[in-house]
Amino acid sequence: MSNTESTAAVTNEEVFAAHEGGKLTVETTMPLDSKRALSIAYTPGVAQVSRAIAEDPSKAATHTWADRLVVVLSDGSAVLGLGDIGASASLPVMEGKAALFREFAGLNAIPLVTDTRNVDEVVETMVRLRPSFGAVNLEDVLAPRCFELEQKLIEALDCPVMHDDQHGTAVVVLAALTNAARLTGREFAQTRVVIAGAGAAGIAVAEILLGAGVEDVIITDSQGTIHRDRDDLNAVKAHYAQRTNRDNVIGGIGEALQGADVFIGVSSAKVDEEAVSRMADEAIVFALSNPDPEIMPDVAARHAAVVATGRSDFPNQINNVLAFPGIFRGALDAGARRITPAMLLAAATAIADVVGDDLAADHIVPSPLDERVAASVVSAVVGAVE
Amino acid sequence: MSNTESTAAVTNEEVFAAHEGGKLTVETTMPLDSKRALSIAYTPGVAQVSRAIAEDPSKAATHTWADRLVVVLSDGSAVLGLGDIGASASLPVMEGKAALFREFAGLNAIPLVTDTRNVDEVVETMVRLRPSFGAVNLEDVLAPRCFELEQKLIEALDCPVMHDDQHGTAVVVLAALTNAARLTGREFAQTRVVIAGAGAAGIAVAEILLGAGVEDVIITDSQGTIHRDRDDLNAVKAHYAQRTNRDNVIGGIGEALQGADVFIGVSSAKVDEEAVSRMADEAIVFALSNPDPEIMPDVAARHAAVVATGRSDFPNQINNVLAFPGIFRGALDAGARRITPAMLLAAATAIADVVGDDLAADHIVPSPLDERVAASVVSAVVGAVE
Repeated sequence: MSNTESTAAVTNEEVFAAHEGGKLTVETTMPLDSKRALSIAYTPGVAQVSRAIAEDPSKAATHTWADRLVVVLSDGSAVLGLGDIGASASLPVMEGKAALFREFAGLNAIPLVTDTRNVDEVVETMVRLRPSFGAVNLEDVLAPRCFELEQKLIEALDCPVMHDDQHGTAVVVLAALTNAARLTGREFAQTRVVIAGAGAAGIAVAEILLGAGVEDVIITDSQGTIHRDRDDLNAVKAHYAQRTNRDNVIGGIGEALQGADVFIGVSSAKVDEEAVSRMADEAIVFALSNPDPEIMPDVAARHAAVVATGRSDFPNQINNVLAFPGIFRGALDAGARRITPAMLLAAATAIADVVGDDLAADHIVPSPLDERVAASVVSAVVGAVE
Repeated sequence: MSNTESTAAVTNEEVFAAHEGGKLTVETTMPLDSKRALSIAYTPGVAQVSRAIAEDPSKAATHTWADRLVVVLSDGSAVLGLGDIGASASLPVMEGKAALFREFAGLNAIPLVTDTRNVDEVVETMVRLRPSFGAVNLEDVLAPRCFELEQKLIEALDCPVMHDDQHGTAVVVLAALTNAARLTGREFAQTRVVIAGAGAAGIAVAEILLGAGVEDVIITDSQGTIHRDRDDLNAVKAHYAQRTNRDNVIGGIGEALQGADVFIGVSSAKVDEEAVSRMADEAIVFALSNPDPEIMPDVAARHAAVVATGRSDFPNQINNVLAFPGIFRGALDAGARRITPAMLLAAATAIADVVGDDLAADHIVPSPLDERVAASVVSAVVGAVE
């Protein structure tokens, strides 16, 4: 399978062994190995803490784990490149996500996966459990349902909620594009950006680029460019048909890329070399589909000045882990009740700035393992909280 | 406050410091500190595991944490001796319970507390999250609602569900009573047992004693003995009015204790020395209310051969931690879909047998810290699975 291309050294046996019994454990902050310890952590000591919270509910934030606990929530309807594999099969991904919160942000996170796909039922479920957690990372929910679900969760819960497939991706793409534009001497406002894919990532990338001042964005879906004359668009696409495609370009990805400065692929639909060759000089190509990029980087490099993918075995990996741990940690550290566009823009700037003087065509984003990233994102996000 | 009586050496400052930020953390089973580790635990490696579960759902049991994850579920309506303090204030207790699962059974457990008290809504919530966990420890839910909630959860979820305030208490009481009867040369069938309290614990103790062959059980509530002529009983009490109080004793705790062999207090209502003095020779007194026993052990000892309490600072502590970790671990190890009366009886026998030759009036149950207990309960429970 193509996955193995990117991890030649990793065997299936190794992967399955690492996942046996799951990848998470719940541990205690103090050993309960003496009567004294038991009387502090459990009865009778715990009664004093519960009574204190009953008298002053604000103490729940300081004396339980809930206020800083991230729920990784999914219905398993759009998992990685696997599609709709269901809640149970999505669990290894959600456990991995929770593990990344621990590793990169020092946060506690637990996966909760739902059998229901009904938006109102999922929202109702989280509202009923509200005292149990402090933030929600929505994950791998199919578009366009993910847009409505995220919006309704934000309205129903007074805590940070973010669909990472949308905003985590958008933040890292903006960081990478900021550095790629810097390298190729482009002004954001003057660039034409073509986004292949109108799902969770594509729509969120379009939104953050518009917010960052890009005036000429074209989104394509399986039917071609999204333009104002199409009558087959869902509500979300119809909304962006009004706000993008300034020149109302009609046609396929080939027509869209004609003279374009930037290609951002988040659709898994292949793009041929000929189409990329028609882009502007010093073109920027982000072929982000995993495991198979829309166009292989060596081919794209024949026509583009900067090439990025979603894969760890090529330069310039656009990886959400650069963004979401610091965004949630920053929001929780600041006691923010919402994750705002300003916080996302600040996170993108912070990620771009970590590269600093090391900026090069094959180094427009930091390594996911660069420990400076999460710290700078946290302080940038905290600074952006109104 | 009276709590401090039992933990003279423990200061409030110490207790609150130990609970700051909560008592649980979620950790990863493998460090994610290299690209290789990331490609195994997360993308692209994790996709192979998710795909395998999608093709063979039984693999979710072996390659995620969910199948052996215990949810500690509460609505905060009957917390310890504190009563209805609400979901948030109950969290320190639920975190402590989860910590005990880790410490005594090596199981992962997470607290989920609900804002709703509606039985059907709580059941519906757990059904929607069903793929996320493997067992439910129901905790601190007010009677009689707890009986209906436990029953409906058992019917709706194909996994072990147990309300510990009922069955954990009942199992340890049965273990202690088994040894106390052995000490005082009593036959279970011939003993008269008076249970003060018709809440979760009282009803479950009555049920397990009837199941163990005790023929003469009397339950009292705030209105006196539960008997067949009362017209003020809820459905649960009315049911036990038919199955207990063989001689239809009418009156208060005083009349009930007249000539009784065993007193089991789970009501926090005080019992005076005079009433206890009217019990049979070699009486057995379990005054289990915390922090204040129905009668102090030194006073009860003037008239009883064996005295037990719920407190760690007196001999014979009747502590649920002797039972629930091993019961859940055994049920999960055996892949049981239900926790049956046979499993509970086996657990009680195992706990009683750990005492063995050390049996004495001041040692009828093992110490909660005795490491042999959980292991013997696990194997007894596994052996009792049909």
